Amino acid sequence: MTAIDAFDMVLFGGTGDLVMRKLLPALYHQHQDGNLPAEGRLICLGRSVPDTAAYLDKAHGLAKGYLGNAYNDADWASFAARIQYLKLDANQPEEFQKLADVLGEFPHRSRVFYLSTAPDLFAPIAKSLAGVGLNQGNSRVVLEKPLGHDLESSNKISREVGEFFQEQQIYRIDHYLGKEPVLNLIALRFGNTLLEPLWRREWIRDVQITVTEQVGVETRADFYDKAGALRDMIQNHLLQLLTIVAMEPPASIDADAVRDEKLKVLRALKPLTAETVHSHVVRGQYRAGAIGGKPVQGYLEEPGVPGSSKTETFVALKAEIQTWRWAGVPFYLRTGKRLQERLAEIVINFREAPHSIFGRNATPNRLVIRLQPDESVRLYLMAKEPGNQFRLRPVHLDLDFKEFFSSRSPEAYERLLMDVIRGDLSLFVRRDELQAAWKWVEPIINSWETSAEGPKPYTAGTWGPAAASALLSRDGMAWHEEA
Amino acid sequence: MTAIDAFDMVLFGGTGDLVMRKLLPALYHQHQDGNLPAEGRLICLGRSVPDTAAYLDKAHGLAKGYLGNAYNDADWASFAARIQYLKLDANQPEEFQKLADVLGEFPHRSRVFYLSTAPDLFAPIAKSLAGVGLNQGNSRVVLEKPLGHDLESSNKISREVGEFFQEQQIYRIDHYLGKEPVLNLIALRFGNTLLEPLWRREWIRDVQITVTEQVGVETRADFYDKAGALRDMIQNHLLQLLTIVAMEPPASIDADAVRDEKLKVLRALKPLTAETVHSHVVRGQYRAGAIGGKPVQGYLEEPGVPGSSKTETFVALKAEIQTWRWAGVPFYLRTGKRLQERLAEIVINFREAPHSIFGRNATPNRLVIRLQPDESVRLYLMAKEPGNQFRLRPVHLDLDFKEFFSSRSPEAYERLLMDVIRGDLSLFVRRDELQAAWKWVEPIINSWETSAEGPKPYTAGTWGPAAASALLSRDGMAWHEEA
Repeated sequence: MTAIDAFDMVLFGGTGDLVMRKLLPALYHQHQDGNLPAEGRLICLGRSVPDTAAYLDKAHGLAKGYLGNAYNDADWASFAARIQYLKLDANQPEEFQKLADVLGEFPHRSRVFYLSTAPDLFAPIAKSLAGVGLNQGNSRVVLEKPLGHDLESSNKISREVGEFFQEQQIYRIDHYLGKEPVLNLIALRFGNTLLEPLWRREWIRDVQITVTEQVGVETRADFYDKAGALRDMIQNHLLQLLTIVAMEPPASIDADAVRDEKLKVLRALKPLTAETVHSHVVRGQYRAGAIGGKPVQGYLEEPGVPGSSKTETFVALKAEIQTWRWAGVPFYLRTGKRLQERLAEIVINFREAPHSIFGRNATPNRLVIRLQPDESVRLYLMAKEPGNQFRLRPVHLDLDFKEFFSSRSPEAYERLLMDVIRGDLSLFVRRDELQAAWKWVEPIINSWETSAEGPKPYTAGTWGPAAASALLSRDGMAWHEEA
Repeated sequence: MTAIDAFDMVLFGGTGDLVMRKLLPALYHQHQDGNLPAEGRLICLGRSVPDTAAYLDKAHGLAKGYLGNAYNDADWASFAARIQYLKLDANQPEEFQKLADVLGEFPHRSRVFYLSTAPDLFAPIAKSLAGVGLNQGNSRVVLEKPLGHDLESSNKISREVGEFFQEQQIYRIDHYLGKEPVLNLIALRFGNTLLEPLWRREWIRDVQITVTEQVGVETRADFYDKAGALRDMIQNHLLQLLTIVAMEPPASIDADAVRDEKLKVLRALKPLTAETVHSHVVRGQYRAGAIGGKPVQGYLEEPGVPGSSKTETFVALKAEIQTWRWAGVPFYLRTGKRLQERLAEIVINFREAPHSIFGRNATPNRLVIRLQPDESVRLYLMAKEPGNQFRLRPVHLDLDFKEFFSSRSPEAYERLLMDVIRGDLSLFVRRDELQAAWKWVEPIINSWETSAEGPKPYTAGTWGPAAASALLSRDGMAWHEEA
């Protein structure tokens, strides 16, 4: 483990859900594992809580619940000693001097500003930080989705934050990139000879990336109805996973070597037109149905959703990458709410063996990298059944993380927060990547806005509209779960 | 399961060790599993036992021990009902009429003659069978090693047996070819797309085939001292395993399609010269040592071994295959008695990744097909350790036959006997293969016979003479167990 310098981490939106539910538990775990340097403060900002004692009281109550078995009083006490609460209204530039004073106690520490706020505050906060001199070389800002609503608004955020912070100070988090199976996909591809020679159009028939939820819009209707699944999931998480699958081997794991390769993939995505949006992209919206046997209401009946909403809660699409490696290999992406299962996985379907000597019973090979509900890497092969015949049967080899590694598999946020503290940008989205992703989805947004046709209805608890299956069956393929 | 026609199987050497220890138990298992047709007799020949009752008495006592849990009285009773003993001296042609009379009861059955005798009886028995008309199209003869002592004597057997039986009636057994992991190697190579594209010099660095024993010469000194490890193991078993690893994909699994490919490999083996025998082949002979903590005597002290014997009890060699697929890839073969472990395995060492982005800690990938002591297929990969670093760790994926297949994994002889009964020659060695294998080892035999240097001594319980390690370390490699 490389030694980590002393740091101060400032959490904007310190009383919010993300900080309480994800960031503080992640930092607690890293503290407990001894990965945080002794000199490391967490300065939590908010408006709703009066002081540190009250903040810790709230945080302690929530953390106990989120941490489960990992919680214990002694570790919490030493962790809480790092936390300092500061009442600060991020809309008021003049209040930032208070923050500067606190940070000024240790002028040479790395400073991480985690902007867990609404995105319309990103630029004002950046400006206010700069206003009190907190944008020097030792400062890093962490931004999280939604990074804009479309290409233009995203560019605006990048431009405005970029006025005060250099690109190498900006950490755009996509927590899917911090998940262990995704990192293992990078390790498997580039740490072994066995996969990379096959990782191309000659041997791969199609790639499927699925991130589905059973939950509906929950309490986020206000935000979600303006966003929809395309902006909320495809533009960021699913396209990022696609870049990890599809990128050329980088020359090193340095941040820009990796991000250059990811960018190349995004730029090589075949641009969609009005016609191909129609033929290659399916949007859906859930209707009343049942999840796990319990009836659930339709999207239009959810509190806070206008009855006339055309917002999509499901997207399935076919992407193509115009490179020598991937020409002709469909990348099918799919995401949605109120679907049959909670599932996040990357499926690599290999081509059939070119010639079968064992008769017709060989299933093509498949590699499945699963992120949710469990973390696993599974390779599907054909093996011979014991016995007198030469009969093949599908079997699978599992990379069982629990078996091989006695250590705990850390949450994505743990890894990513440590990367920010260390100053490693590899797993963060660069401005040009963000822009390329928005650029690619823009024809979809535009086409849907001008289309008379709305999203296709699907029953809650199914795998989405029939058109999503048809998208693959037209190509002679099927989604993994239907295989 | 294809229906199997009625058959009569005649076991020459019916009171011998192979029949009692391997063949009858194998047939019992297949009987128990319901794979033998109701019309199937076993006619056991011998001289030492007076009649069927006495034979069954002896067989029953031995079978109980060899069958373990699989034995039960009811199954044995129905199995024993198939068995008929015939007192017959295979040296006396005139006695064969008795056999012809018994078989004549069912003139249209498939007839299998298993010659579990000394090889000098193969030709006389073939002639005697022909003398009473038992070499017709429905007859098959099964021969087992030693099939000669050198190229010439082997050719003589082939020629003499071939006078009375067509090549497609002759089943030369090499029981290593009936082992499930070996058959699974064929299934893995040709039933999947994942391995075959990598199965070549571009991606494979070297192949190691090891068959080692802990036992010494035991009661076989008389035979063994005239044969040695080269004739007893390398010429047949290890070269056969090599052909399975190295053959081109056959167009079908038909017997001659497979055997044509195996033959091509044997013929493509780079011929050895006096110089390369010296540099590429190591012979050893065990000295006193310890196995599993117990002292054991040296080969020269074994009962029946002449004190001046130069017979090798160990061979390690490096073979090269002169084809586009394998040029430059060493195939290391190793076998011996009184070694540290009982082990039979095929190790495929893949090349290192051409460029490492994770630092120096990547171990090359490796596929290990193990035949003994347990049956397994294991793939060694590098995966990412969970945690904040990008640290790779070797892991292995197991094709766990017990997990995937609830069915019993049959013994090699079961499979091969059923193949003979069915008339499937795929896993039997063809005359030209046998010849090619003898031809390749002949320079070794000749060189050793004329060499003043004897076998290199090694201590019982080690991995053989140091020269066997040096053979690989010269090439910058190491035997699997030393890695």
